[in-house]
Amino acid sequence: MLDVAAVRSDFPILAREVHGKPLVYLDNGASAQKPRCVIDAVTKAYSLEYANVHRGLHYLSNLATEKYEAVRGTVARFLGAAQEDSIVFASGSTEAINLVSYSWAAPRLEAGDEIILSIMEHHANIVPWHFLRERQGVVLKWVGLEADGSLDPQRVIDAIGPRTKLIAITQMSNVLGTRVDVQSICAAARARGVPVLVDGSQGAVHGPVNVEEIGCDFYAITGHKLYGPSGSGAIYIRPERQAEMRPFLGGGDMIREVTCEGVTYAAPPLRFEAGTPGIVQQIGLGVALEYLMGLGMENVAAHEAMLRDYASQRLAGLNWLNVQGQAPDKGAIFSFTMAGGAHPHDISTVLDKRGVAVRAGSHCAMPLMQSLGLSATARASFAMYNTREEVDALVSALELCHEFFG
Amino acid sequence: MLDVAAVRSDFPILAREVHGKPLVYLDNGASAQKPRCVIDAVTKAYSLEYANVHRGLHYLSNLATEKYEAVRGTVARFLGAAQEDSIVFASGSTEAINLVSYSWAAPRLEAGDEIILSIMEHHANIVPWHFLRERQGVVLKWVGLEADGSLDPQRVIDAIGPRTKLIAITQMSNVLGTRVDVQSICAAARARGVPVLVDGSQGAVHGPVNVEEIGCDFYAITGHKLYGPSGSGAIYIRPERQAEMRPFLGGGDMIREVTCEGVTYAAPPLRFEAGTPGIVQQIGLGVALEYLMGLGMENVAAHEAMLRDYASQRLAGLNWLNVQGQAPDKGAIFSFTMAGGAHPHDISTVLDKRGVAVRAGSHCAMPLMQSLGLSATARASFAMYNTREEVDALVSALELCHEFFG
Repeated sequence: MLDVAAVRSDFPILAREVHGKPLVYLDNGASAQKPRCVIDAVTKAYSLEYANVHRGLHYLSNLATEKYEAVRGTVARFLGAAQEDSIVFASGSTEAINLVSYSWAAPRLEAGDEIILSIMEHHANIVPWHFLRERQGVVLKWVGLEADGSLDPQRVIDAIGPRTKLIAITQMSNVLGTRVDVQSICAAARARGVPVLVDGSQGAVHGPVNVEEIGCDFYAITGHKLYGPSGSGAIYIRPERQAEMRPFLGGGDMIREVTCEGVTYAAPPLRFEAGTPGIVQQIGLGVALEYLMGLGMENVAAHEAMLRDYASQRLAGLNWLNVQGQAPDKGAIFSFTMAGGAHPHDISTVLDKRGVAVRAGSHCAMPLMQSLGLSATARASFAMYNTREEVDALVSALELCHEFFG
Repeated sequence: MLDVAAVRSDFPILAREVHGKPLVYLDNGASAQKPRCVIDAVTKAYSLEYANVHRGLHYLSNLATEKYEAVRGTVARFLGAAQEDSIVFASGSTEAINLVSYSWAAPRLEAGDEIILSIMEHHANIVPWHFLRERQGVVLKWVGLEADGSLDPQRVIDAIGPRTKLIAITQMSNVLGTRVDVQSICAAARARGVPVLVDGSQGAVHGPVNVEEIGCDFYAITGHKLYGPSGSGAIYIRPERQAEMRPFLGGGDMIREVTCEGVTYAAPPLRFEAGTPGIVQQIGLGVALEYLMGLGMENVAAHEAMLRDYASQRLAGLNWLNVQGQAPDKGAIFSFTMAGGAHPHDISTVLDKRGVAVRAGSHCAMPLMQSLGLSATARASFAMYNTREEVDALVSALELCHEFFG
């Protein structure tokens, strides 16, 4: 079991107040807070151990390179990847998914080829594919949800046709908390020769991940949601897919030789990592993932399941609150609107005055909002450091909000 | 004048030792060290003021957004840009130049169209253009150097032909320290309707910059060389050019509306900034630029000119040392080889044992190395916090190295 009090004491910001009230941070779906070990690692890297990485030959450069490159192995362990070289660093899942779009998909897909998406994808896993539709006539096929907000994997599998070249799907909705059975989808897709990209931006944060068991071709993570620094991230890319990809960003480190006449490229994963990377952010990401593995992702998942059950029960008691999505086994993410017309932005503002930080808007998932018939929701998204008392604080603040606008 | 002792005391890492010797950090061309104000700003952001930016509505998100967005104005002031909206954030100049290549050049240039480059460009300002050669038949035209390593702007101007669509040129060579008269090049190019991209990765670090006076269309900077965090950076893009660019990375924040059928995009500069950005890195970059402006870039330039003159004179006294590039008004960057066959890697390793950090290799500028007939050099690159005593330490270490290998 997670010792939540101990975990909380690792996060300096959780001790602060907002508007004179203790901070109740429930905007983890947008970005998570950072434990002291991550902050300290960043401070130490800049204060004592900083230099550019790769080909440095001097002490500080070698030291920074060692620490930076060790993170590749940490990410591989965190994701259960058999080979360290299958991990490509990126500034986050947005860059990672764009890498797949530009390097793998753009040169291969032709007009009429299809990409299957679920309706609940984040814009990061939609807009790169819309580019291919705009620029080269690729067709996007959308799979909808069941009434309870769950996604039937068979509907995704049934959508596979002879022109399907890729399935790009989230492991967990950032709006509804819906978990997707990506393993079944990957197995069926693989049998039909269709690669699968899994957006793990949320999924990897809330439970154990093993990309070899999932059987995906691409699995993107974003460090800032994983308690790591902003601008950190990575993507697992199955080696066969790496071999099919052309370079994306051009610059230092990703080349073997440059002449006036041409370029030869470094072997993957460096081929896909151009220029001076996010050295210190990635070092911080490594520390964050070690921290999570130290806690145990099973323990994180169990604690968040408890929070989900408790929050579901408490929120169900508010009969003027419309919670979107009730999929079994959903994550502890709750999007809601309020009967009586309080706009989600107003809800967020009122809650903020009580110290409760929630997000309001379309949560970068407009197609989902359109399918729900909504323009916006307020969203409370829990993390491993949240408590039952914080669920109570949310409910109290919502009750106040209801009185205010009701 | 710069109070160098005071400046040095702002940089924690400069107090450390390497191999039992005081660190003499002369690898600034690869990456600069960070002042305490930057490190503290990063620590504070993560410890007390962190949340995701844009559309947050809660206190921490508003606070982080304010601090993050204020950096746009700081960069604009630092670069002398008239409009804040002309600044697009990027993870560094590599991403920034790739943005121009993918968003502006790729959709506009056709087979046979020409891009003019100098032979001394960094790979970050070569490989993105080689992509266009490989993928769509664009022709790269190279302009060479004079015998002393200087670049005659007239040779660039004379290279402009009817098919020239872009000039992409550095303001300062990261290998030779050569400064380029980009203002004359821009004036002539503008008269002929040819846009100019200036790679300011080095130039912006070593003296005042005013993009309006330069008259360029694009000016890229990289934060980690500007005493800011790794993974920070920006590019000035003239508004007319912004209007000609299509989106590059797709994801959150750069859209206006996403539906299953299509996307409409946010106005620039957000159109070119997808997903959760490098929030804390950019905040740190803002602090670094304020720090530099507080010192005064004229003072930085004057101090470094003194270092250049002193180092030039001291190194000229070593008649077994071949210093590459003697352009008048060059920056304090010295690339050299040693008579008698010591490999630059060996030089770097021996110097390192004396605490002197220099880089060895091709410095991500292979076409220049090829034109010099070299495969590698050792490079000492000075920053504003370096001293005459550190020049002496370099010379002593080189003498030891010469004895050792001579």
